[in-house]
Amino acid sequence: MSELLPNIIEMIRPLDEGATAQARARQSILTKPQGSLGRLEELSVQLAGIQGKPIPQIRHKAIITMAADHGVVAEGVSLFPQEVTAQMVGNFLRGGAGINVIAHQVGARIIVVDMGVATELEPNPQLLSRRVALGTRNMTLGPAMTSEQAVRAVESGIEIVTAEMAKGLDIVGTGDMGIGNTTASSAICAIMTGRPVAEVAGRGTGIADKQLAHKVEVINRALAMNRPDPKQPLDVLAKVGGFEIGGLVGVMLAAAAHRIPVVIDGFISGAAALIAAALSPELKDFLIAAHISAEAGHRLLLQHLGLKPLLDLGMRLGEGTGAALGILLAETAARVLAEMSTFAEAEVSERNKPGN
Amino acid sequence: MSELLPNIIEMIRPLDEGATAQARARQSILTKPQGSLGRLEELSVQLAGIQGKPIPQIRHKAIITMAADHGVVAEGVSLFPQEVTAQMVGNFLRGGAGINVIAHQVGARIIVVDMGVATELEPNPQLLSRRVALGTRNMTLGPAMTSEQAVRAVESGIEIVTAEMAKGLDIVGTGDMGIGNTTASSAICAIMTGRPVAEVAGRGTGIADKQLAHKVEVINRALAMNRPDPKQPLDVLAKVGGFEIGGLVGVMLAAAAHRIPVVIDGFISGAAALIAAALSPELKDFLIAAHISAEAGHRLLLQHLGLKPLLDLGMRLGEGTGAALGILLAETAARVLAEMSTFAEAEVSERNKPGN
Repeated sequence: MSELLPNIIEMIRPLDEGATAQARARQSILTKPQGSLGRLEELSVQLAGIQGKPIPQIRHKAIITMAADHGVVAEGVSLFPQEVTAQMVGNFLRGGAGINVIAHQVGARIIVVDMGVATELEPNPQLLSRRVALGTRNMTLGPAMTSEQAVRAVESGIEIVTAEMAKGLDIVGTGDMGIGNTTASSAICAIMTGRPVAEVAGRGTGIADKQLAHKVEVINRALAMNRPDPKQPLDVLAKVGGFEIGGLVGVMLAAAAHRIPVVIDGFISGAAALIAAALSPELKDFLIAAHISAEAGHRLLLQHLGLKPLLDLGMRLGEGTGAALGILLAETAARVLAEMSTFAEAEVSERNKPGN
Repeated sequence: MSELLPNIIEMIRPLDEGATAQARARQSILTKPQGSLGRLEELSVQLAGIQGKPIPQIRHKAIITMAADHGVVAEGVSLFPQEVTAQMVGNFLRGGAGINVIAHQVGARIIVVDMGVATELEPNPQLLSRRVALGTRNMTLGPAMTSEQAVRAVESGIEIVTAEMAKGLDIVGTGDMGIGNTTASSAICAIMTGRPVAEVAGRGTGIADKQLAHKVEVINRALAMNRPDPKQPLDVLAKVGGFEIGGLVGVMLAAAAHRIPVVIDGFISGAAALIAAALSPELKDFLIAAHISAEAGHRLLLQHLGLKPLLDLGMRLGEGTGAALGILLAETAARVLAEMSTFAEAEVSERNKPGN
């Protein structure tokens, strides 16, 4: 194991309290009743603390969408065949997926990463190939990956963020694609939150009751086989995780180390956040939960992280679609703080003195 | 009374069921699990039904922000002095207010309308002057306005929408500015929903408990004095409403008549929607509730209208700031429907047959 991962974790520092105080003070003199922009005001203060700037800027926006396959699909946990992971990567590269449309509206670039798709993909200048293996192994039969593979996945995420910073990166959103990855994420969520699998496993792409019961049984079998230790987050990742989940762990840690806000998408990104936050207790202050997805365990997961989602639109697509909308709101928050006039500048009267 | 208002109401027709069916069918063949974009999918179908197009378009966006003053401020119901209404209109025109910043991000033009500000405003090419009077009268002493003034306010809203259509108008957001207007809106809300004033009145710009109790008492006095009849929506508007609220009623009716979706902002726009929906039962299908505001009665009001808010960010600024964010999401919804690839186009496998 190289020093990259421990070094990045070491770099993560608390929010800049000077910047948050200045942002909060500025919010109170802008031409609006105090607190009247609600969560947008809080978000602007968080962004200030992350970036270490009294007036944070959101200009260069990126979504990192990581794809990988999961051996556990052999157990029949998904509604879609495994080939869809590779096909959807093709769709991302041709611009036809949900994330392409929403990222375009948001003005965010998309970085599509093959972290371990089971099918060989044609080389494409738009595709980053960081394939750890041709999909994970079936976690009901043993660990999904080796410890070395887990570390390699996380390190790839770190390296990608570092490379993207050279192009300008004021905020990053996380996204995923991988048939079977709600199964891996449910396993991680159950272990890291200590809740029963039946409480955290959901319908993924849309399975019915009978298949959901089967999925719960499969996850319980995988946990019994592997006995991952929640005190060893990388052990959990290796035993029941996925390559795209590992990559996203690296993205989150590296972004926090470099003081870049991370907008997390839905349940799969949330599972990665559970691992990342266990590696660095400071991490969660750098996370913005874009939305609460329709996936059953997501609410629990966000509560465990102490994160309050911005949106509740019943979305459960993944890919970074929720994160893209979260970036939009983060940009709104930053713009309001930067661009609104103060009472003095606008010559608007402030509130009456109490008692008047 | 001219024929304009009854004619506009007569023009409002149900949603186009052919277009909604086609939009729904297209959503089901786009490259994503069915229903996985949640409320965005529903919204795209509603937009199709409103515009009467299987693939609705949101290109020309406008926010109509109407300002007026309220005689009831003499009773001490607000935290800010009345002069702030005029000062904030100046702020809108110079581009320094919250709505300027957010509308700029959204790419929506802002139409600022003086519906009845109490102070003379300097002429400005960016300001539409439709002033009905120098503010309403104090509704605790008698009707806030005459029946003729109420109709004139509504007609102004209708005329503004018609004029804006010539510039292109695919969606319209409503906004308001008026010190004292949560008091008028609470009165409307109490009468139209039949709930006690204490349940619907809120803190407006941020009053404390004691002033809130006083505000409730003032509204109860105004209702006892005027006895508005909920079966006569224009009577309610005249007796306890405001000029900006009347203008927004006209905006909503005219937009619906011309099949333009209306994104309503917070509590004041909601009060206007209560009046407008009582004038035309078909109207509410044309409304999109942008958000649930922090104002106490807003949830009740939206439930009464049968509308489900898109956002819950604790906002309570008005001006159209919530509506602007709602327009952003409507645009996302329309873009997804228009721009995503189908399974066939992208050569992505559809879900496994049941039983597989």
